[in-house]
Amino acid sequence: MVEETVTLEGHLIDSDILKKVFDRVVQEGGEFEVVEFRVGRTNADPSSASVAVKAPDPRALDRILEGLAYLGAVTAALGDARFAPAEADGILPDEFYSTTNFDTLVRISGQWMAARDQKMDCALVLREESPCCVKQGLVKAGERVALRGQGIRVRPPERSRDYSVFGFMSNDISAEINKTIAIRGSASEMRRAREAGEKIVVVAGPAIVHSGGDVALARLVRDGWVDVLLTGNAFAVHDLEKAILKTSLGVCQMSGRAVEGGSRHHLFAINAVNRAGGIRKAVETGLVTSGVMYEAVTKGIRFVLAGSIRDDGPLKDTITDMIVAQKAYVDALRGAGLCLMLASALHSIAVGNLLPARVRTVCVDMTESVPVKLSNRGTLQAIGLVTDVGFFLERLAAELSGPGERPPGTEG
Amino acid sequence: MVEETVTLEGHLIDSDILKKVFDRVVQEGGEFEVVEFRVGRTNADPSSASVAVKAPDPRALDRILEGLAYLGAVTAALGDARFAPAEADGILPDEFYSTTNFDTLVRISGQWMAARDQKMDCALVLREESPCCVKQGLVKAGERVALRGQGIRVRPPERSRDYSVFGFMSNDISAEINKTIAIRGSASEMRRAREAGEKIVVVAGPAIVHSGGDVALARLVRDGWVDVLLTGNAFAVHDLEKAILKTSLGVCQMSGRAVEGGSRHHLFAINAVNRAGGIRKAVETGLVTSGVMYEAVTKGIRFVLAGSIRDDGPLKDTITDMIVAQKAYVDALRGAGLCLMLASALHSIAVGNLLPARVRTVCVDMTESVPVKLSNRGTLQAIGLVTDVGFFLERLAAELSGPGERPPGTEG
Amino acid sequence: MVEETVTLEGHLIDSDILKKVFDRVVQEGGEFEVVEFRVGRTNADPSSASVAVKAPDPRALDRILEGLAYLGAVTAALGDARFAPAEADGILPDEFYSTTNFDTLVRISGQWMAARDQKMDCALVLREESPCCVKQGLVKAGERVALRGQGIRVRPPERSRDYSVFGFMSNDISAEINKTIAIRGSASEMRRAREAGEKIVVVAGPAIVHSGGDVALARLVRDGWVDVLLTGNAFAVHDLEKAILKTSLGVCQMSGRAVEGGSRHHLFAINAVNRAGGIRKAVETGLVTSGVMYEAVTKGIRFVLAGSIRDDGPLKDTITDMIVAQKAYVDALRGAGLCLMLASALHSIAVGNLLPARVRTVCVDMTESVPVKLSNRGTLQAIGLVTDVGFFLERLAAELSGPGERPPGTEG
Amino acid sequence: MVEETVTLEGHLIDSDILKKVFDRVVQEGGEFEVVEFRVGRTNADPSSASVAVKAPDPRALDRILEGLAYLGAVTAALGDARFAPAEADGILPDEFYSTTNFDTLVRISGQWMAARDQKMDCALVLREESPCCVKQGLVKAGERVALRGQGIRVRPPERSRDYSVFGFMSNDISAEINKTIAIRGSASEMRRAREAGEKIVVVAGPAIVHSGGDVALARLVRDGWVDVLLTGNAFAVHDLEKAILKTSLGVCQMSGRAVEGGSRHHLFAINAVNRAGGIRKAVETGLVTSGVMYEAVTKGIRFVLAGSIRDDGPLKDTITDMIVAQKAYVDALRGAGLCLMLASALHSIAVGNLLPARVRTVCVDMTESVPVKLSNRGTLQAIGLVTDVGFFLERLAAELSGPGERPPGTEG
Repeated sequence: MVEETVTLEGHLIDSDILKKVFDRVVQEGGEFEVVEFRVGRTNADPSSASVAVKAPDPRALDRILEGLAYLGAVTAALGDARFAPAEADGILPDEFYSTTNFDTLVRISGQWMAARDQKMDCALVLREESPCCVKQGLVKAGERVALRGQGIRVRPPERSRDYSVFGFMSNDISAEINKTIAIRGSASEMRRAREAGEKIVVVAGPAIVHSGGDVALARLVRDGWVDVLLTGNAFAVHDLEKAILKTSLGVCQMSGRAVEGGSRHHLFAINAVNRAGGIRKAVETGLVTSGVMYEAVTKGIRFVLAGSIRDDGPLKDTITDMIVAQKAYVDALRGAGLCLMLASALHSIAVGNLLPARVRTVCVDMTESVPVKLSNRGTLQAIGLVTDVGFFLERLAAELSGPGERPPGTEG
Repeated sequence: MVEETVTLEGHLIDSDILKKVFDRVVQEGGEFEVVEFRVGRTNADPSSASVAVKAPDPRALDRILEGLAYLGAVTAALGDARFAPAEADGILPDEFYSTTNFDTLVRISGQWMAARDQKMDCALVLREESPCCVKQGLVKAGERVALRGQGIRVRPPERSRDYSVFGFMSNDISAEINKTIAIRGSASEMRRAREAGEKIVVVAGPAIVHSGGDVALARLVRDGWVDVLLTGNAFAVHDLEKAILKTSLGVCQMSGRAVEGGSRHHLFAINAVNRAGGIRKAVETGLVTSGVMYEAVTKGIRFVLAGSIRDDGPLKDTITDMIVAQKAYVDALRGAGLCLMLASALHSIAVGNLLPARVRTVCVDMTESVPVKLSNRGTLQAIGLVTDVGFFLERLAAELSGPGERPPGTEG
Repeated sequence: MVEETVTLEGHLIDSDILKKVFDRVVQEGGEFEVVEFRVGRTNADPSSASVAVKAPDPRALDRILEGLAYLGAVTAALGDARFAPAEADGILPDEFYSTTNFDTLVRISGQWMAARDQKMDCALVLREESPCCVKQGLVKAGERVALRGQGIRVRPPERSRDYSVFGFMSNDISAEINKTIAIRGSASEMRRAREAGEKIVVVAGPAIVHSGGDVALARLVRDGWVDVLLTGNAFAVHDLEKAILKTSLGVCQMSGRAVEGGSRHHLFAINAVNRAGGIRKAVETGLVTSGVMYEAVTKGIRFVLAGSIRDDGPLKDTITDMIVAQKAYVDALRGAGLCLMLASALHSIAVGNLLPARVRTVCVDMTESVPVKLSNRGTLQAIGLVTDVGFFLERLAAELSGPGERPPGTEG
Repeated sequence: MVEETVTLEGHLIDSDILKKVFDRVVQEGGEFEVVEFRVGRTNADPSSASVAVKAPDPRALDRILEGLAYLGAVTAALGDARFAPAEADGILPDEFYSTTNFDTLVRISGQWMAARDQKMDCALVLREESPCCVKQGLVKAGERVALRGQGIRVRPPERSRDYSVFGFMSNDISAEINKTIAIRGSASEMRRAREAGEKIVVVAGPAIVHSGGDVALARLVRDGWVDVLLTGNAFAVHDLEKAILKTSLGVCQMSGRAVEGGSRHHLFAINAVNRAGGIRKAVETGLVTSGVMYEAVTKGIRFVLAGSIRDDGPLKDTITDMIVAQKAYVDALRGAGLCLMLASALHSIAVGNLLPARVRTVCVDMTESVPVKLSNRGTLQAIGLVTDVGFFLERLAAELSGPGERPPGTEG
């Protein structure tokens, strides 16, 4: 038997994490003893546990310790992280460390440095002397890539202990919860993000327009509640069709009836906007005078349209190359504190992949499957709301932008 | 080849029906010719088609004609319907005719008589000299049961041609339609049913309470928009729990948090209401002072609670025997002109089975599956709305009971 | 500040439970300290934690301790459970204790006695000197009903630590897991239940027949893998329609085409079976010679058909009163070790309500919603499989009843 | 009143189409009379109807006739199609005609010419003297674009009258149909496509790999049943991860357990394949020796991987620019007779947008929503199967590639 004592630290070290440690040790035929267990009394005071781990042989102990490192356990003795150069553009050394979406520290010359641009499924690359999460395909030949093993430490995920909506609704993904409370909680989180100077990001799917929720979203943009809009070609097209022709997929949005020849309306809208030179120009020239994209342009907020194989057109504003589009999403997400993911499986999961776990997310969809997928990503600050996105947006706008109320910090 | 000329009649005889006739004939190896085709110009003026049918032998022609009878085709020469006695209580003669949910005429002594209590999957039984749709299990020994074959005629289903919401939304079952328009259309239908003196029936599932839609439903009841409430034990229990303890399944409806010991709240509510002697008494004694059931009792509208194997309690008001509960539903549905089916797969499909196809239905559910099942029942006056029932009810109540507005014919 | 030291005990005391304790204490404004923490080394060796709890006043401490009692924490000083008589049939004293689905101990004259018929949302009633879980509606006037507070202890739920499929798949509810592995794991559990002499219960929905899974289920019954079949009228009707007429809802099960006049087939089948005197008689007289119900009768296994408001017929075997049907389900579930819940929201949730948490369950459904609901019930030995029930049954039967293989203990 | 007589022609002219004509005319305040109605006796003999249409003024008549043109009605007097030049690359004249997915004829110098590359939501562009469906974004400045109005004729859609599975299952989208029959029908269609020399296209989503259906799909490719594989980066990555590391998303495909460090496996697989120089090279060098991609390379069938914003990596083979990917899909779809769309909302709808309505499609998904969306596209040769894709593939492979059976025309 070889033995090593590991320390776990974090606000909720007493929770799932501890169980996982034990499971890991037992699976490897090891033994363990809780040497000390200290529970943090306040939010600012993290818990810690000291666990003595024994294993039948050094290899097994290594395997245990590697596993525990992923869980945030820190062994007493730790070396620096090891690096190897990328063999070619986009080609990593096989022993590359793959990131999670939890904040990560890398030990370089005895110092723990926080990784920049934390996101999952990336390589950790040394850039400008500090570790940075870089998508595999964007690593350049010769860049120094961190290898798995010693010197990399992940902060254990923490569930919010405070009285926010994330504190008590994080585990529920069901259509059968009181939506009023959940939406009010989302509104509080938006106010809180505003006050904290964090960005509020909206990921939007085309169902918002089809189901009539675009009016409320436009209002939220106009009232300053949205800093970044991440979406695809389709959402913008339907929003613009509605602005220009008052239809959505050829269905009149006043009467609900299909309009004669309406099936060409979205192509007509694309044509008109592209002729004008894109969305900003279409707003400036007066072609587009309402809708979410209009408000986004007028308000000057950042929007990114990522293309997809499904697109018609596309709009000139749509980024058709996915590598470029991902980069644009990553840029736009910097500084995000809260992310609303609204009725778009494709873009919500894309953004979920690009966000650090610490960013609070509210995922609204008509079925459980998208929220379930996102919650499997390990974030503990996520709410899944199974409801109609049109309903969500209307109620959210009413909560935030009711008569007389203005979001803080907006002059609008 | 034997030949017979059949006539089809109805407003939309030109549609699917005609195709089905042709398919039927061709399948039997027959031939046919459209002798005459007259298209009705107005809603009051039905279309008709006269089709000469040939078949290789008399048996095949019989099979064709039997098939066509189901589709509303009437042969020139027709005998009276044939009857045979039920062998025992609940036991039909094997050749029994099984009803559809379309209005049915039965030829007795050369006269076509309309069947009473039209609903699907019933026997046609002669009661008080006239034909009546009776559930198999309720047929008494010796009663005269109609046999399939001649003398029974089903009116072909008709799609609404007018400008109601049923006219243009009947085929859409999708989350991606403009809900505002569909809900506004539903409100118009309710006003129209009111003006026509037809009953408005609401079928309610417990998700209404969990998702916070009960407030709006209570308002609709109070304002006189609901004549009959068909539901189960669970809906009433959750509504009463909320009225008595301000929680739903132990979750506080103000804060959204689970209440200490809240898992017993619904049992507590059942206990309290049953101790009082049932729902009406609980209202009269002041135990229950709000909620849907409170409004239903106060307004004096009819409600039926059908039990299920899932029930806790149950409430004294819940009918635990399903035969009795079905009868109570059937009684309550008489005179129904419009039926809102809200977030209850079990009760919605039960009611769908008991309604004639002519009753307009609006089915609201979070997934496509219930609306799809209901639309397979053949009604052409049905809308399926894939949305959050809480949203639907709030918006419907706002449409119908906005400030200053009162439903016609209510003194409340 | 008042203080009391509580002890928690169980195999996974280190897990979620501990976190819940802390949350509870903090919510009440209390403080706590982990006095001792002992981790069980083996499955037979439970973990325990000793936690000193302080609260601002005695009332708050009481509230904390009551909350902890639900979580399995035992205070050092404990009195006997208190009882009060039921006021009337079905009417409990307001302070009644409401059961969970975890095994429960009741302290009577200083002795801890295990409650019989453990299931959730029941009263704890003294019958024959021992505590028994009784549905509210079945409690008789004057029976002694346990009150909440001291003297009642719930064993904390435990997640399986062993290498069964329940050990590693319990948290996944998704269509995107490897079904082959999950089905193979389910088969292992069935073998294990057989070897342990536990009953295997199948809860069956009508979609089994519609989707063609009935052939495999019949084979499982024939090969002795099913001890109890809990279902409703519809499943049996469709199974019998197929046995007698080779159609399901009038659709030929060879060609997939609707059969002329097939919409009356299920009524015809009910009629024929009821005329014979019920399902057993229909098998004995040779009317029914195949199918799941045929195998169940031939094999002599117990089946219970619970009625519902949706039923046609019903079959003579269907229990139409829900109180009676629930009792029959409860009786049939005694001794259950494993429960397969197959494509029936209604009956699966009903059975979920009646089962102790210790019974292993496999829930198969096409959508996430039923498995999600069941997993919210707190069982840790549950797998949710989002797949086609026909697929599940075929593969399960192939695993269990492949050529040359026989389940242990069957002579068939 | 102005009047014109229009002729409709097609096998099922008697069906929905006729109703739509009447609805259209009535909506515009017009009148109509069925002058002649001829029903085709055989599959080779189309039906036709001659309808006299009256309208209050020439403008209304124009609107009616334009509407009827979309439905396949042909007026007696018809001019040539009109064209105008594209203003710039990707910018159409505003009066552009927008294509449907039905076969389209364009009248040029008095001759009706069939459009090439029929697909919906395209411009009709004159290329090499014949009309061609071109995506808006691909139209070049100055190319002649057809304008809506006269000279364009759409063949009315036809429902299959024969005894194929498309003939009787086209309207069912439900989990509750007999899958065995539907899958057997799909197998027949594949044999039929083979015999007709048509291409069989498979659109594949990553859930195929997660749910274990990849083995069967690999077998189908190996046995020559697949001509084209259209998918995205994720499907290929998961397939390759399984081939190289025996895991899927880090979950061991033998045991179902998460593998230590498995979350980096898909990145490792991408890295290894890209280092080899792409999928073909990875197969040639022996890195990849099993799986769907392996069989595709070995068999030499065409595959196209379209990128998405969600991608990791991506693989070198993945086309990251959506314009280029769409072109590659369009090229690969030429000559398609049957298309299986398997568990991919994104790619299935993309392909649905690119296919002419005449191509038979089988869409397999776990929920109704994708099949419902596809069926709204107007194809009458589509089956929607709500089932587990793993099940579908296994059963399909068993039907097609059972022992001793070989697809015609394969030497394998």
